[in-house]
Amino acid sequence: MCEANVYVEKNGIEEMILEAVDIIEPQENNTFRMVTIFGEQKIIHGRLKGMNLVDHKIVFIPEGD
Amino acid sequence: MCEANVYVEKNGIEEMILEAVDIIEPQENNTFRMVTIFGEQKIIHGRLKGMNLVDHKIVFIPEGD
Repeated sequence: MCEANVYVEKNGIEEMILEAVDIIEPQENNTFRMVTIFGEQKIIHGRLKGMNLVDHKIVFIPEGD
Repeated sequence: MCEANVYVEKNGIEEMILEAVDIIEPQENNTFRMVTIFGEQKIIHGRLKGMNLVDHKIVFIPEGD
């Protein structure tokens, strides 16, 4: 399976917030809806920093923190 | 390998523009830098529509077309 893990970066430190993410869809107001392969959903408010799919890694910079 | 294929959607039709993408990094002015597992780079100007990693699929809506 080729899902990825989603991290947020705060003060240069990456923290994983969701594992096994399959779907990511941008929503309005700089939010992203994420859905894991298990059907769990999470919304993140921020902007995409980058992704490295071979490493299964997607990093967001949170906003409003 | 868990790379993905990148598509652009124009008029409801998806066209693949790059295969085997490993890295995607947002740049300024709504552009994204993509790098394949072979080291090929491509820049796309647009916005992310969504991604489905299990299907190895990332879709952008191009801008300026």
